[in-house]
Amino acid sequence: MSIDTSSGPVVSGAAMRAAVTESLASIAANADRAEQERRVPDENIAALREAGLFRALQPSRYGGTPMGAEEYTPALVDIAGACASTAWVAGLLAQHSHLIGLMSAELQDEVWADDPTALASSSVAAINGCEEVPGGGVRLNGSWGWSSGCDHASWAILGFRRADPVLGGMVIPHFAVVPKADYRIHDDWFVAALRGTGSKTLVVDDVYVPEHRIESFLALGTGTTKGFGLHGGIFHAAFVNWFSLGFSAVSLGIARRFIEVYREKVSSRVRAYTGAKVADSAAAAMRIAESHHQTTAVYHTLHADWSAMTARALAGELPTDDEAVHWRSNQAYATKQSIEAVDRLWSASGGSAFFDSNEMQRLWRDSKMTGSHAYSDYDIAAQKHGRHLLGLPPDMTLF
Amino acid sequence: MSIDTSSGPVVSGAAMRAAVTESLASIAANADRAEQERRVPDENIAALREAGLFRALQPSRYGGTPMGAEEYTPALVDIAGACASTAWVAGLLAQHSHLIGLMSAELQDEVWADDPTALASSSVAAINGCEEVPGGGVRLNGSWGWSSGCDHASWAILGFRRADPVLGGMVIPHFAVVPKADYRIHDDWFVAALRGTGSKTLVVDDVYVPEHRIESFLALGTGTTKGFGLHGGIFHAAFVNWFSLGFSAVSLGIARRFIEVYREKVSSRVRAYTGAKVADSAAAAMRIAESHHQTTAVYHTLHADWSAMTARALAGELPTDDEAVHWRSNQAYATKQSIEAVDRLWSASGGSAFFDSNEMQRLWRDSKMTGSHAYSDYDIAAQKHGRHLLGLPPDMTLF
Amino acid sequence: MSIDTSSGPVVSGAAMRAAVTESLASIAANADRAEQERRVPDENIAALREAGLFRALQPSRYGGTPMGAEEYTPALVDIAGACASTAWVAGLLAQHSHLIGLMSAELQDEVWADDPTALASSSVAAINGCEEVPGGGVRLNGSWGWSSGCDHASWAILGFRRADPVLGGMVIPHFAVVPKADYRIHDDWFVAALRGTGSKTLVVDDVYVPEHRIESFLALGTGTTKGFGLHGGIFHAAFVNWFSLGFSAVSLGIARRFIEVYREKVSSRVRAYTGAKVADSAAAAMRIAESHHQTTAVYHTLHADWSAMTARALAGELPTDDEAVHWRSNQAYATKQSIEAVDRLWSASGGSAFFDSNEMQRLWRDSKMTGSHAYSDYDIAAQKHGRHLLGLPPDMTLF
Amino acid sequence: MSIDTSSGPVVSGAAMRAAVTESLASIAANADRAEQERRVPDENIAALREAGLFRALQPSRYGGTPMGAEEYTPALVDIAGACASTAWVAGLLAQHSHLIGLMSAELQDEVWADDPTALASSSVAAINGCEEVPGGGVRLNGSWGWSSGCDHASWAILGFRRADPVLGGMVIPHFAVVPKADYRIHDDWFVAALRGTGSKTLVVDDVYVPEHRIESFLALGTGTTKGFGLHGGIFHAAFVNWFSLGFSAVSLGIARRFIEVYREKVSSRVRAYTGAKVADSAAAAMRIAESHHQTTAVYHTLHADWSAMTARALAGELPTDDEAVHWRSNQAYATKQSIEAVDRLWSASGGSAFFDSNEMQRLWRDSKMTGSHAYSDYDIAAQKHGRHLLGLPPDMTLF
Repeated sequence: MSIDTSSGPVVSGAAMRAAVTESLASIAANADRAEQERRVPDENIAALREAGLFRALQPSRYGGTPMGAEEYTPALVDIAGACASTAWVAGLLAQHSHLIGLMSAELQDEVWADDPTALASSSVAAINGCEEVPGGGVRLNGSWGWSSGCDHASWAILGFRRADPVLGGMVIPHFAVVPKADYRIHDDWFVAALRGTGSKTLVVDDVYVPEHRIESFLALGTGTTKGFGLHGGIFHAAFVNWFSLGFSAVSLGIARRFIEVYREKVSSRVRAYTGAKVADSAAAAMRIAESHHQTTAVYHTLHADWSAMTARALAGELPTDDEAVHWRSNQAYATKQSIEAVDRLWSASGGSAFFDSNEMQRLWRDSKMTGSHAYSDYDIAAQKHGRHLLGLPPDMTLF
Repeated sequence: MSIDTSSGPVVSGAAMRAAVTESLASIAANADRAEQERRVPDENIAALREAGLFRALQPSRYGGTPMGAEEYTPALVDIAGACASTAWVAGLLAQHSHLIGLMSAELQDEVWADDPTALASSSVAAINGCEEVPGGGVRLNGSWGWSSGCDHASWAILGFRRADPVLGGMVIPHFAVVPKADYRIHDDWFVAALRGTGSKTLVVDDVYVPEHRIESFLALGTGTTKGFGLHGGIFHAAFVNWFSLGFSAVSLGIARRFIEVYREKVSSRVRAYTGAKVADSAAAAMRIAESHHQTTAVYHTLHADWSAMTARALAGELPTDDEAVHWRSNQAYATKQSIEAVDRLWSASGGSAFFDSNEMQRLWRDSKMTGSHAYSDYDIAAQKHGRHLLGLPPDMTLF
Repeated sequence: MSIDTSSGPVVSGAAMRAAVTESLASIAANADRAEQERRVPDENIAALREAGLFRALQPSRYGGTPMGAEEYTPALVDIAGACASTAWVAGLLAQHSHLIGLMSAELQDEVWADDPTALASSSVAAINGCEEVPGGGVRLNGSWGWSSGCDHASWAILGFRRADPVLGGMVIPHFAVVPKADYRIHDDWFVAALRGTGSKTLVVDDVYVPEHRIESFLALGTGTTKGFGLHGGIFHAAFVNWFSLGFSAVSLGIARRFIEVYREKVSSRVRAYTGAKVADSAAAAMRIAESHHQTTAVYHTLHADWSAMTARALAGELPTDDEAVHWRSNQAYATKQSIEAVDRLWSASGGSAFFDSNEMQRLWRDSKMTGSHAYSDYDIAAQKHGRHLLGLPPDMTLF
Repeated sequence: MSIDTSSGPVVSGAAMRAAVTESLASIAANADRAEQERRVPDENIAALREAGLFRALQPSRYGGTPMGAEEYTPALVDIAGACASTAWVAGLLAQHSHLIGLMSAELQDEVWADDPTALASSSVAAINGCEEVPGGGVRLNGSWGWSSGCDHASWAILGFRRADPVLGGMVIPHFAVVPKADYRIHDDWFVAALRGTGSKTLVVDDVYVPEHRIESFLALGTGTTKGFGLHGGIFHAAFVNWFSLGFSAVSLGIARRFIEVYREKVSSRVRAYTGAKVADSAAAAMRIAESHHQTTAVYHTLHADWSAMTARALAGELPTDDEAVHWRSNQAYATKQSIEAVDRLWSASGGSAFFDSNEMQRLWRDSKMTGSHAYSDYDIAAQKHGRHLLGLPPDMTLF
């Protein structure tokens, strides 16, 4: 098999985004059902597949139409305004294809040769260790929680701890990609927010994973995976920035939607105790304006990173240290800002917004949870970035 | 019937608070059930009745043991740490007795003569008007929402609009106290927080209310109700400050409990991605300290108001303008601060805190909703206070 | 004189910015002197003239090299890092040329025909009225304060109130451009920050201003001035967005410089009481990171506006309502954010940063004052924007 | 000499505070002069001496009239509203007498026997080490900066590092009290705020300090100094809480004064560009209300600590660990809150407030600097408190 060094032309995402837009009304209509069923409705996934979302970060060799981060990600922002859970899940499923695109050709063929629409969910925290198998590969055992969208995936990306010969045997996180036959889904997803993500637990019972399905965290970040170079374009990249594109995009999308709903609500709201029109309130005006300015700034600062990520990859270069730490931490900052934009309005939305029938309470719950992912923890992200700015070495206790 | 100008000695609340403390473990154990049943469990109310909570603001003539606000309110703070919904409801039920204690002797006899343990719920926003009845009294029609604890009450205090002869016929809010036979409960309480409060809708279908069951908002605030002076002590007061004692107390109680839970969680939490101990994190230490300092300040500023309220009443004086606006608005400030104290910790509690089985997510939801009551809206409260400080006349669009 | 509909090609600002960069070390070296003399040193102005800054928004007919806002404004950001007062003054002097470029050809010839390097300062708040002169023109009397950079200008733009026939005689702000001979400078600039701006008071004693030197605020915003259309390109615009480009740019430039100085300070600072290295402090890392993320977002959100302003003008269109209110209010938001970025670091800079010999205290003072201009008042800007978002009519008490 | 176990009755501070109030107008009138001369005017000190301020924390044996912290400290709050520099200096001078009251009887006689009005300034950061002298005592050499009020003192308390036999020779901070003859004042106090404190540098050139003038930081905190027990009452205490009473008190006093000045300003301020009355602005009302609520809470939370400190001392007990860490860190929290209260109003005070002739700009500068003292650094204080709450051992890099 010859090496294909091109991922095909990076095409405009405008068509994909337009197709996604077509599906938003039905995705929004399904939002309550997603919460009740605690998973993304199948038709949402089907509609987004139809729109081409899952091909956006997939190698062209398997039917993908890879595009820049600044073309792909705005579609997620839009979807999050209709149903944050759907956007969270769809984003991860799409982004995982980018990671798989960095792995061995053998694995990529296993995943996509027969079914180019195959998707993978993940659970990448390296909670579990592994048992080394003589001759190569490992045996895995244990539970992997938080696997968003696992109901829609036929593969799973699992994090685990393993000694890395490249680092003299230091034990570091590795990722294994395993087929659905190798794990079962334990439904334990009973949560206060992002209920529709169906982020259930994957249970693995003594499964063998061959080497071609394994990469280390280090290799994935440094362009040294088995499949690095199989595809060019956006696949000339560290996995983590592409893997995590969705978190802040979902948070921003929720915030944008909240501003819209607040605007509608305030325009017609009358205070129960006084009959005063809320729209005439200077406080309401100041709140919506600040959240609007804030989310506008979030969009522009994320967009700059998306464009820079794409440009760097297309130039055939990995990110500089400055870029790597900024791209990673700026996502957490953007998420924090997006949550603030929602909170500012939610705090002035009144008691009626708490009714289950009111979209605002779902948006608020979902918004808050976008900040609870380890990747979105700004205490951590800020320390990472701050230490870098101050010329200190990375602190390995900070992810 | 002679006028009793004494409400009996204002006794220490220490015994009551100690008795309440005895019931907290079982109230906490009922917290999930309160959410599921969307009402306060009967045994919670029974336990608090037993502890003497509902007699704390009831005239001694009917078996009450009236006490100062600084003796009564800390018990609510404690209860809120066990179950915010229970504290919210119990507080309102107890505080309504203070309002009834300002109304006509005839009404007080109706409420308490046969059953000194009778309680009233309320819905005081004057959404509905009334039909005047020749010879006195009014006919009421309509729905009154948000009646927290109505399942445990045999009377309801309903706000409505009526022309006030004292003000030359200006239409202002009035309160009517009506027996349970006069309304039915419509169960529409499906909400994202404070679920256990059972704040359902009361439906009134063409009910006559005689004058002795009615007072105007103005009279209740200015010591000119029919029953003003029947009891002395804490009943020499404007109703609103006593009516609303619970809102900020509940918010503070939730915050205190959150700090406690966060402390336990952080002490043992280990980061999934790195294995780092969260307790060693400077960020976690700074967050818990700031929330601790903040709630400590909330307690002291509320306590000062509680003591001043009691002192003013015992001196046989109504509050000055400065006091009235400060007591009212400082409650909203205290609530805002308490919510911030929770949010600061919640934002760093991680994803696992969102599981339904985790108390933190309930505390967070409940905390946020304490700020959504009209009385807790700091945009409004701050404008009221600010205009007063700037020497401007009250703005009647601000409640 | 034939009408020149072209302002010449809009050239890249890269060369100008590079030339400005050359002058920054000497401008920074003059910063203390600027404070002591309470005016921008002449050689700073000379250096920036040499670098081409003052031609950036001047019509090409008079030797200008007009460029887009996104090319011009970054140079101001850079200058502010060296000396905020110099950037404030130089920005206003340059931006005023854009306004003059919208006025009558006769005025433009008066200003630039003999001296293409002529500059104007301004004082545009319409504090004073005017006396109408039969046959046209007005007589002005009074004092105009806050005229930043007046020492370097040979003309002044003065705001005054006048009846506008276009609005049926409604009295609205107008601007008059008057030569230096018509006013004297009263040195009353004794202030706590931006001391070097020399924003002194201009005193006018019964001066006649002919019509060709006058435009209404309305005309300047709606493309109906006497000279609108004389030049194309960036002069096809509402004056206010170009007039005000510098305020937020200066604020951002100060913040960027503060981050740099803080980084240097923290890298070497040792706590007096403990000998602990501040750089190892998680708090210091989190502070610098957040200010870095924040100013990065400010830059990107301002850059988007600058680019949009230029694009709109080059397309021969005035801004839409959405754009007009966003561009105006987003500047105030950007300024507020930049000030926050400084305050976050300043609050953790320790007592030694307060010494007069320490650049940080000047940066802090100057930063704070960038938010005190009427145009940067976010309470006002947010209300303007919020009312627009809520579909309310503009409130004319909000500038 | 027999041991006097009583410090005399702890008398009410009402008389002292009333006498201080008499002097406030003249102290306020001197505020500009204090800035220009960079020291507290002698007549300010004389007036406060006359009012009895310096006797408030002095042992009664030497003419002091010791009183509780809750009686003493409010006077400082009042003084700070007139002149923050005077309050800062007077507070330290008064509080140092409490520390001296813990030291050897021999030292106390040296300081006060001949001149009961003698005062000490300090510079307690242990920057310098010492040379041990055989037979006891140390020789000191070096510079001690930041000695607020040194112009008014005849003694100085200097921090230095010394091996402590109690701790097995571990080197920890010690304090030496040296007479004015042993040091000279180097005037290097050129700063952006609190200019009137005259916090100059003390230069010591090879001076011998006998043991009776020395105590370790440890002994001062644990009731094991040479003179502990000489006086009872408020002298049964750890030095640090009493030593530091003034920092937050000054910050609060400035904030209270700022609210007052803002109220006056806003009541009459008219916007330059629109003629709108600022007092009608909802934003102005909300800002002043929040700062008012905030400073009210600061007062009550500090007052609770002051009362607890006094009660603990009068009970003959040292603080518990909980109290010690809370009292220390809550002061920094109170200072942070007070600064916020000022900043909220300052940010909306407009450009004219920056004029040197406007009291607001001085209040703002002084307010900000109250937070820059090591004791007021909330990053540090919060970490100390947070670690305590989380059950972690003290971190010795945090003062």
